[in-house]
Amino acid sequence: MPVISLLTDFGDRDAFVGIMKGVIWKIAPQVQIADLTHWIEPQNVLHGALILGQAYAYFPEGSVHVAVVDPGVGTQRRAIAARIGKFYFVAPDNGLLTLPLEKAEKSGEPIHVVELNEPRFWLPEVSRSFHGRDIFAPCAAHLINGVPLDEMGSNIKSRDLVRVDVPKPRRTPTGWLAQVLMADVFGNLISNLTVQDAGDREIRKVMIAGTEIERFTRTFGEAPAGSLISMFDSSGYLSVCVVNGNAQKQLNVRVGDPLEVITN
Amino acid sequence: MPVISLLTDFGDRDAFVGIMKGVIWKIAPQVQIADLTHWIEPQNVLHGALILGQAYAYFPEGSVHVAVVDPGVGTQRRAIAARIGKFYFVAPDNGLLTLPLEKAEKSGEPIHVVELNEPRFWLPEVSRSFHGRDIFAPCAAHLINGVPLDEMGSNIKSRDLVRVDVPKPRRTPTGWLAQVLMADVFGNLISNLTVQDAGDREIRKVMIAGTEIERFTRTFGEAPAGSLISMFDSSGYLSVCVVNGNAQKQLNVRVGDPLEVITN
Amino acid sequence: MPVISLLTDFGDRDAFVGIMKGVIWKIAPQVQIADLTHWIEPQNVLHGALILGQAYAYFPEGSVHVAVVDPGVGTQRRAIAARIGKFYFVAPDNGLLTLPLEKAEKSGEPIHVVELNEPRFWLPEVSRSFHGRDIFAPCAAHLINGVPLDEMGSNIKSRDLVRVDVPKPRRTPTGWLAQVLMADVFGNLISNLTVQDAGDREIRKVMIAGTEIERFTRTFGEAPAGSLISMFDSSGYLSVCVVNGNAQKQLNVRVGDPLEVITN
Repeated sequence: MPVISLLTDFGDRDAFVGIMKGVIWKIAPQVQIADLTHWIEPQNVLHGALILGQAYAYFPEGSVHVAVVDPGVGTQRRAIAARIGKFYFVAPDNGLLTLPLEKAEKSGEPIHVVELNEPRFWLPEVSRSFHGRDIFAPCAAHLINGVPLDEMGSNIKSRDLVRVDVPKPRRTPTGWLAQVLMADVFGNLISNLTVQDAGDREIRKVMIAGTEIERFTRTFGEAPAGSLISMFDSSGYLSVCVVNGNAQKQLNVRVGDPLEVITN
Repeated sequence: MPVISLLTDFGDRDAFVGIMKGVIWKIAPQVQIADLTHWIEPQNVLHGALILGQAYAYFPEGSVHVAVVDPGVGTQRRAIAARIGKFYFVAPDNGLLTLPLEKAEKSGEPIHVVELNEPRFWLPEVSRSFHGRDIFAPCAAHLINGVPLDEMGSNIKSRDLVRVDVPKPRRTPTGWLAQVLMADVFGNLISNLTVQDAGDREIRKVMIAGTEIERFTRTFGEAPAGSLISMFDSSGYLSVCVVNGNAQKQLNVRVGDPLEVITN
Repeated sequence: MPVISLLTDFGDRDAFVGIMKGVIWKIAPQVQIADLTHWIEPQNVLHGALILGQAYAYFPEGSVHVAVVDPGVGTQRRAIAARIGKFYFVAPDNGLLTLPLEKAEKSGEPIHVVELNEPRFWLPEVSRSFHGRDIFAPCAAHLINGVPLDEMGSNIKSRDLVRVDVPKPRRTPTGWLAQVLMADVFGNLISNLTVQDAGDREIRKVMIAGTEIERFTRTFGEAPAGSLISMFDSSGYLSVCVVNGNAQKQLNVRVGDPLEVITN
């Protein structure tokens, strides 16, 4: 049975997210709602796109992922709903859906996108600054209730959607020049080099913030507590970690900082 | 189908909120539960009342809003349940329900309040410091299950309920003297001047923290990033914002600080 | 109807918890899921054990408590599922279940533990760093669906489980030497002296951080705002509080700091 997930930059100090749930349950009383996170950095669409890309595929087929990181709310930016492979998405057209789009395009999965321009699926009054409540939440609830995409708005070609530029690692003679995409709650530094990029090559060394990390492991348990290691994380990204510690604090690294990866 | 919402000052570091959900689902296994926020400033009843006032009406008819900001827990303050218009509320009698009460009184909607003094609807053991778990959660669950208000305790006249004093804007020869009620996660400063207060008058200028803001907009998109603007927010409050920025940090303003609003 | 609770050290900045919910609802679409807290101090198993110990018994009989504070993920530490008295638990074998185990052992309630070593109940691909998603969440969902413990893995004797050492208060000629176990969101300092330890003895004085607290109360309301008091909290632990204030900040006390309790 499909569920709805919510990803926003609304935090949890205000009632914005709770209000969206009230709106959803008024239309679709039985649907389960999961919070992905509401701590996307304010209006950082790339950050939202990365987290959504990590999470969406773990949900039941037919689930609706609502992503609201929306610096353009109230402007001409479009509101969209999409079926991408096995999942639905509701979001502003600003690049939040880049990762599932790229994945579906690579694998040839079907993509179907509409602009949410049918006001009968919105709240009766639409504010100019909270489309999460007024447009995205009710449209997600109607989708879960079985309203076909085509009724909710006019078709858009997926190649006309806004995309974010997810930085890609660059090949070097000895490996890659990668960069830090984000840090997780444990201070693990997640880079843009994936296990697919690496293929058969063995990671021999990672240089980051003036530090050389020679220990590449498959698990945290292979190195003693406090060790700096690199490993592919549970989403397949090369990450730099301190075993039972915090690499972000220890290395004082920021999102966007470079790391050099040396392979065999 | 009605749902239960929870608003508290319990934060999310402890298991207090999760425990309340366990208690509710033991009595009402099918009910959906939405968190409004658990980050009301500790024991700040006015803050809780304002957030509850923004949120409650977006829920399905018959929903039960549980609000626990309770500096008087363990004293003689009453625990109450109320039907106010289309919604139920469960809370200590300390002013948390002021906004829905005022709204219902203005519009002539029915109000029915009882003191929660029937221990058979509480947990068997009642602590002196956690009535959220021991009284409010189980009573909310019994309400959702259809127990009539009148069985849950003795009637109270709504005029005898404690109210909080929500500061009102003051008319001046040139407009209003308003004040900052709260800031949201984006640093938008929310004042106590509402779109209803303003009526037909046009906002020409807002003076706050020594800064004059001449740009009044209907949307964020009408001004370039970084601009200071004023606009009516999605709840109808006049707010001061930096487009894609943080007005609270930029202006270094606190809750309660004044703003002068000049109209035509 | 049983529910699933989640307790982790994952915070809410990443989508880890939301992903676990997606995994659970894919297998058990109707189950209610309550967050206990996701702010256990990173990899602090004792902290997790204490919060789980406060919360688990408030849930419907048969509920499954999933606890993932897992510094040993990817090592040889076992993943376990257990029926302890009326509740199920799914966790790494590192001591998180110590409190329910001790309680059941004292009261003679049945305990049944298995090692989760049947991969058919896991996700098809198991990472080496996120067993919350790959093993614990799907196993919890299968348990809720009625899969018997015995099918999920081989039996373990409960005396072979890892336990955490919850510090116990020490008797002194005049009372006890206790210590601070944790602080809650209000800054109330929770000690390891329980109402059961105290029995009939009356608390006359608490000495902590060079301060003597002579006021022992049953409720917050018995002392004026700003007073330092000691009282048994809603879980039965002796705690040190400032009425409508924050004892942790005022006394500058840390977890593990001693307090001396003087009785009659």
